[in-house]
Amino acid sequence: MLVEGRNYRTVWIEGQSVKMINQPMLPHKFEIVEFKDHKATAEAIKNMVVRGAGAIGATAGYGMAQAFINAPEKEGFDDFISKAAETLRNTRPTAKNLFYAIDRVLAATKKEDTIEAKRKAALKEAQKIADEDAKACERIGQTGQELIKDGYNVSTHCNAGWLAFVDWGSALSPVFSAKRTGKNVFVYVDETRPRCQGSRLTAWELVNEGIPHAVIADNATGHYMKTGKIDIVIVGADRIAANGDVANKIGTYSSAVLAKENGIPFYVAAPTSTIDINTKSGNDIPIEERSQEEVTHMFGRTDNGQHGRIRITPEKASAKNPAFDVTPARFVKGIITEKGIVKASEEGIASLF
Amino acid sequence: MLVEGRNYRTVWIEGQSVKMINQPMLPHKFEIVEFKDHKATAEAIKNMVVRGAGAIGATAGYGMAQAFINAPEKEGFDDFISKAAETLRNTRPTAKNLFYAIDRVLAATKKEDTIEAKRKAALKEAQKIADEDAKACERIGQTGQELIKDGYNVSTHCNAGWLAFVDWGSALSPVFSAKRTGKNVFVYVDETRPRCQGSRLTAWELVNEGIPHAVIADNATGHYMKTGKIDIVIVGADRIAANGDVANKIGTYSSAVLAKENGIPFYVAAPTSTIDINTKSGNDIPIEERSQEEVTHMFGRTDNGQHGRIRITPEKASAKNPAFDVTPARFVKGIITEKGIVKASEEGIASLF
Repeated sequence: MLVEGRNYRTVWIEGQSVKMINQPMLPHKFEIVEFKDHKATAEAIKNMVVRGAGAIGATAGYGMAQAFINAPEKEGFDDFISKAAETLRNTRPTAKNLFYAIDRVLAATKKEDTIEAKRKAALKEAQKIADEDAKACERIGQTGQELIKDGYNVSTHCNAGWLAFVDWGSALSPVFSAKRTGKNVFVYVDETRPRCQGSRLTAWELVNEGIPHAVIADNATGHYMKTGKIDIVIVGADRIAANGDVANKIGTYSSAVLAKENGIPFYVAAPTSTIDINTKSGNDIPIEERSQEEVTHMFGRTDNGQHGRIRITPEKASAKNPAFDVTPARFVKGIITEKGIVKASEEGIASLF
Repeated sequence: MLVEGRNYRTVWIEGQSVKMINQPMLPHKFEIVEFKDHKATAEAIKNMVVRGAGAIGATAGYGMAQAFINAPEKEGFDDFISKAAETLRNTRPTAKNLFYAIDRVLAATKKEDTIEAKRKAALKEAQKIADEDAKACERIGQTGQELIKDGYNVSTHCNAGWLAFVDWGSALSPVFSAKRTGKNVFVYVDETRPRCQGSRLTAWELVNEGIPHAVIADNATGHYMKTGKIDIVIVGADRIAANGDVANKIGTYSSAVLAKENGIPFYVAAPTSTIDINTKSGNDIPIEERSQEEVTHMFGRTDNGQHGRIRITPEKASAKNPAFDVTPARFVKGIITEKGIVKASEEGIASLF
């Protein structure tokens, strides 16, 4: 998507380096950062320099390609590769795309005999994963925009825009597509505490695209639903189970329950790479618990223009910080994928594979 | 309640000065501030140096007493008083207690003939309002603690502790009371964006009382309800309508809907001074819209120990900031008052008067 007149993807590979938009610096500073080997790339995933299901997947794929480039030729090649896969796997536990991408690169190299061929195959497969992600997201937009009528108010949670994927995004892709087909659309942006991906990243994407919006405290979403201000909810997903249960950013479940209470259709937009048919239901999805500091503090830009943080809670206060929650399938009106919109049910999911 | 070994109320009067705990400085600095006339006191309410239904009411009562002290004796006394009442009325639109306290002081002075007698009556009535608030909140605690079983996990929203009243608080009073009767109780504290009264004030009160707790992003409350971690929800109220609808801090409605979905009892604790029998239903309660800056920024303590703020959203982003929402009576299991626990219904409310 366009940033200051130039077209960018969220993450890409140049030679041996994985390059990406430095997301913790947004929206205050637009900066590209470079990671020279798979260990540095794994750290970037862990520290959320890059985040979002599709973007994590593509980055992990590129990280695997880096591992194949750097693995020793003489001995220990296989060992190096399996350790690298392990390092990349251990970065974030929830997103399906991470494991999907690592496994795909490994599988693509299995059939090759020479180290040189394995390297080429790894890089090719990683690039393919990224390209497919971008293409799938573009299709999600084209399909999903049909749900958005002219003048609609859309509610979204977290950032499931292009920064969460390689390009276009999942939940925001239908919004971008609707705008480009000439529809008027207004977006209620949940700020999405504790890391504020809504107020930082989704708002930044909407400002760039010239789409009218209001950032709101997560607390206000229910109020706007109840007072008839929201026509449709579209969110992304970090993992979708075989029964249609959806793991996504903490607060998604609340939004889904409130939408149902108020008769508002609640859609999940995700490429099929986010669906894990080996995960039976949401109960089987591990929920990452992150640092208390994300709740006790807030990060952003200080008045003197520096990046900084402020403490909110008393020194002696305790906090808990689950990063995701699980929304049962019965709250989900439909799942918007690159292959069409399906029901959030075992049959709906099965029809995609 | 105790702060560093000394007993404090949230607000009191000394001579002509209204003194109060400077709440925007909490939890990082405990400071008493002084307001010398009703105009300064009105500004303190408007700027939320003091906030919370009962505390606002008591402060407005004291502000009226200040107006009676300062009103010119020769001519324009009545005019001064009615203008002062108007100034105090125009500070915050939602809390019932504000109007209740102003009207009570005015009524108490009506029957007096001399200016001196009016001054005495105003001060006496203002003091009575504050004392009654403290006493009512203490009783709410004694009554409400019976709902809290040993080992319970309580969820609360915003700050309805003693800082929101003159003493004891509404929603937290049962928690304080349960603790003092020897029960184990754990509190899930919604941080309560945008002003974070939960993470700043409720957490501070719980730390002072040695009550175990976890501050959580407002987004996480539904997750903890769904996963069986919460036994009861107790929140405060800014205004309760004659039919049992409850206006309270933005996000209360969401918490109530999520509690109902998960079969968790949802109680509202409030002194009867918060009930407005002239407001038929929640639809008639005005909702204050506050500055966008509370959403686009976060306020707190910087790493160098100063109070400061950071910007979260992009410069060009828009925000909306409703301060309250309305929870329909059907989501409320009961209202805990100083006169006992009643149903959130027309009959329940009527039984109190």
